[in-house]
Amino acid sequence: MRTPVFLLRAAFGAWACAALVAGTATHAAEPVQPVTVPQVKDPARVELGKKLFFDPRLSRSGFISCNSCHNLGMGGSDNIRTSIGHKWQQGPINSPTVLNASQNLAQFWDGRAKDLKEQAGGPISNPGEMGFTHELAVDMLRSIPQYVAEFKTVFGTDRLTIDEVTSAIAAFEETLVTPNARFDQWLQGRKTAIDAQELRGYELFKSSGCVACHNGPNLGGGSFQKMGLVEPYRTTNAAQGRAGVTGKDADRFLFKVPTLRNVELTYPYFHDGGADTLAQAVDVMGRLQLGRRFTDGENADIVAFLKTLTGEQPKIVLPILPPSSDKTRRPQPFD
Amino acid sequence: MRTPVFLLRAAFGAWACAALVAGTATHAAEPVQPVTVPQVKDPARVELGKKLFFDPRLSRSGFISCNSCHNLGMGGSDNIRTSIGHKWQQGPINSPTVLNASQNLAQFWDGRAKDLKEQAGGPISNPGEMGFTHELAVDMLRSIPQYVAEFKTVFGTDRLTIDEVTSAIAAFEETLVTPNARFDQWLQGRKTAIDAQELRGYELFKSSGCVACHNGPNLGGGSFQKMGLVEPYRTTNAAQGRAGVTGKDADRFLFKVPTLRNVELTYPYFHDGGADTLAQAVDVMGRLQLGRRFTDGENADIVAFLKTLTGEQPKIVLPILPPSSDKTRRPQPFD
Repeated sequence: MRTPVFLLRAAFGAWACAALVAGTATHAAEPVQPVTVPQVKDPARVELGKKLFFDPRLSRSGFISCNSCHNLGMGGSDNIRTSIGHKWQQGPINSPTVLNASQNLAQFWDGRAKDLKEQAGGPISNPGEMGFTHELAVDMLRSIPQYVAEFKTVFGTDRLTIDEVTSAIAAFEETLVTPNARFDQWLQGRKTAIDAQELRGYELFKSSGCVACHNGPNLGGGSFQKMGLVEPYRTTNAAQGRAGVTGKDADRFLFKVPTLRNVELTYPYFHDGGADTLAQAVDVMGRLQLGRRFTDGENADIVAFLKTLTGEQPKIVLPILPPSSDKTRRPQPFD
Repeated sequence: MRTPVFLLRAAFGAWACAALVAGTATHAAEPVQPVTVPQVKDPARVELGKKLFFDPRLSRSGFISCNSCHNLGMGGSDNIRTSIGHKWQQGPINSPTVLNASQNLAQFWDGRAKDLKEQAGGPISNPGEMGFTHELAVDMLRSIPQYVAEFKTVFGTDRLTIDEVTSAIAAFEETLVTPNARFDQWLQGRKTAIDAQELRGYELFKSSGCVACHNGPNLGGGSFQKMGLVEPYRTTNAAQGRAGVTGKDADRFLFKVPTLRNVELTYPYFHDGGADTLAQAVDVMGRLQLGRRFTDGENADIVAFLKTLTGEQPKIVLPILPPSSDKTRRPQPFD
């Protein structure tokens, strides 16, 4: 998985040549593509998934929902270094944004879930996050007539298991894309969408090699890379990254490259949330991943470019959650 | 403040006579009036208030917002016996709904805040709730250019203090009303809006005396009454109610009568969240406040009536929160 920086640069060079030859559309010659908005095939499933995403009864306490750590008013993240879990436990890692997450090659920083559906089950039963069990979560839903009816409508069956729950949540999350960032408008030919400094930042982002990992429609999410490629990354965070999944020592400190879409909103940065600001993040990335110390002006240019990646945020009408019935087990947050 | 039950009944009788004489509109002869929707005078102030209501950066942890305990997807409450505060502290009292709260004679169970604006500042600086200070909350907002600009637009001044913050939150909360409950439709003349059982429940609600306290547009919120009027209420909860505000021993266990609007959504019930279901709440209220033991059938009728009080929930488009700037102090939830 680990790719030496010179190989990344070589790959980028090869890509650039191919793109220049093949390019016809405005953005075909760029290593970044605009966000595309998926067609919603099953609006009822999406709506059910939205309710589940916002429902804190999927946690043991009745207090923590998916939206607690993937807050859709805050770039799909929680803006905390590492998340707060059941009974205020300190999470081991920074909460990655759910926005555009369907574009990632896998989910979680270490890629241990292959897709959004597999991911959605994780936090519910993680003792340090929502602290529940799949069985209790499903029991809760089965005790609520409106949920039972909605699951039946959406899935055409009386079966209501964690499989249907995570399918619905994933269907909702697939809609969470952020199109029409100013940079996407520029890619699509509106040349005034970004200014001279932002363009300089983009050119530097490409020429200095950032784009070797942060490319594609998500500017990231497409590979696992070592945090601290040229110089080791110093952190007190214990996360081992991809090695925890593969068991291979060579995969230590390999993390999924995070998307840079909406990066203006998803501070703090890195798997440990160690960088509070974009300026810090750009500086660290330059030194540790590229062996390059950006000047203050260069840093500012790249930061200006990164801020053009903020897209239209999903317009979410807060779902009204079906009320618990008399049979619904009440949450016991303090037991 | 304490009113013996016979006086309540007498007051109710007097009211009923007056209403029968004066009544012209369909609901004029009823002790309950439909919810009215206030005209929004200043939409920009409401929108700013909505952002603040949803912004967890008003808490020390960056994790708890007004919406955490007054969840607008859950009847404006948290559906937990007593709320979870900073560092998972157990709150002293059940979180009252924010829906239709502008109609209450005062705010909090003990009425210690005279209005929504005064209320809004309380949880922010309460060490057991949001755990912040007004100064730090205001510093946070002042560090965010988009907030600074919005405050200036709304208030026409560069002043940004806790006064403007709570004014904006209150303006938003004033819009949180729930019109068109089936019962309101019935009050307004649509006689098929409620069925025979629900109507029986309403008649019993009136004739047995519930309506002596639960009256007006909010079916409550208009007076302080003793919890345990006929028989003492047994609870391990330490709340003393109104006495904590007035210092008068006679005010012990006097609490603001909670609204019954949307009561289907605002479980568990009472100041200590001691009743999980409406059936339990009706039974306890009958015995302790009215000296009456409702039969199972009577209880079911009243519960059926209470469920007709669920109104249209506010349609809330989740606000996109202005991102922190590099100068914004980062939350330290684990310090």
